[in-house]
Amino acid sequence: MTSLAPWRSPLARALHRNRSLVYARYVQLATVRQNGHPANRTVVFRGFWADTNQLRFVTDNRSEKVSEITLSPWAEVCWYFPNTREQFRLAGRLSLISHNEPDSTLQKARQQIWQELSDAARSQFAWADPGMPRVDAAAFEVEPPDAQTPLVNFDLLLFDPHRVDHLELRGNPQNRFIYSLVENNWSQTEVNP
Amino acid sequence: MTSLAPWRSPLARALHRNRSLVYARYVQLATVRQNGHPANRTVVFRGFWADTNQLRFVTDNRSEKVSEITLSPWAEVCWYFPNTREQFRLAGRLSLISHNEPDSTLQKARQQIWQELSDAARSQFAWADPGMPRVDAAAFEVEPPDAQTPLVNFDLLLFDPHRVDHLELRGNPQNRFIYSLVENNWSQTEVNP
Repeated sequence: MTSLAPWRSPLARALHRNRSLVYARYVQLATVRQNGHPANRTVVFRGFWADTNQLRFVTDNRSEKVSEITLSPWAEVCWYFPNTREQFRLAGRLSLISHNEPDSTLQKARQQIWQELSDAARSQFAWADPGMPRVDAAAFEVEPPDAQTPLVNFDLLLFDPHRVDHLELRGNPQNRFIYSLVENNWSQTEVNP
Repeated sequence: MTSLAPWRSPLARALHRNRSLVYARYVQLATVRQNGHPANRTVVFRGFWADTNQLRFVTDNRSEKVSEITLSPWAEVCWYFPNTREQFRLAGRLSLISHNEPDSTLQKARQQIWQELSDAARSQFAWADPGMPRVDAAAFEVEPPDAQTPLVNFDLLLFDPHRVDHLELRGNPQNRFIYSLVENNWSQTEVNP
């Protein structure tokens, strides 16, 4: 049982105030490639895991980000909310929960999120290898996979932030708050924008 | 004189089709911190530099990203277009053009983009140190700086992509193209989404 981090309340408010925009749940996830260069892509926020402060994403373990994360679990999520003109930057650590995850609670979390997906989202995991030379359209005309049991290439991605930088562009001047996790306690500081 | 890269045309089309959204010109810029962790923040795309394929951004050289870029110039821009549901990931190298840039063409480019900014945007460069503990509101009530001559902490940021990954989520199946710069020539490949 984790207590709710202090940045959860402004983030929940932003999600609520931007709920009319489906893409307000899309965030940009930066990781570091094997060659030390950054990688950055859009992923869909799929809620928090149980009563923790860990964000849930899903990924195909055939994608490049999985090998990147295996080498370096550090990530930064950038989350811009258009309606309220505010940004959250969340720095933290990623965990990959794959088909051979031995922890039964985590394995259950992986199954649960698979069951929550739409048929269309699940079907993408049965598509041809992402990033490989384009194959015939037939390789994308798949029957939706079983809705109960995740495909082996389906991973749950948990993201555990340790620093959150919240910038509100609306104020005049703007407002900016830094939340930091130190020895299991969150501190909060107001800084110049 | 550089020839227009082949990804410029789909990017121009996306900008045009999303022109009703001011935030379709906001992109997420990922860099790597001194400790090897990624950093990620929203920046405003300010057009291309002259007849090159280099994207223009501006930054305050008191911000963390400037010291990050000095150590590692590699970056990845993630650009999501909500109206057309497409994403461009641009990997490349950043150059900082600061007040002591000796190249006169680049120094002129820095002055030009300063002159193009609004008074409100220019005023932010006269604000109190970003990221430092919050100071009194008076430190943000500044007269707009001179519109001709950039403040010394104002930097032009040029981003030179060498790989562009364009994903169109709309098609069924989706479409994905990779553009790569090899020995001054751009190649284009279609890959699985």
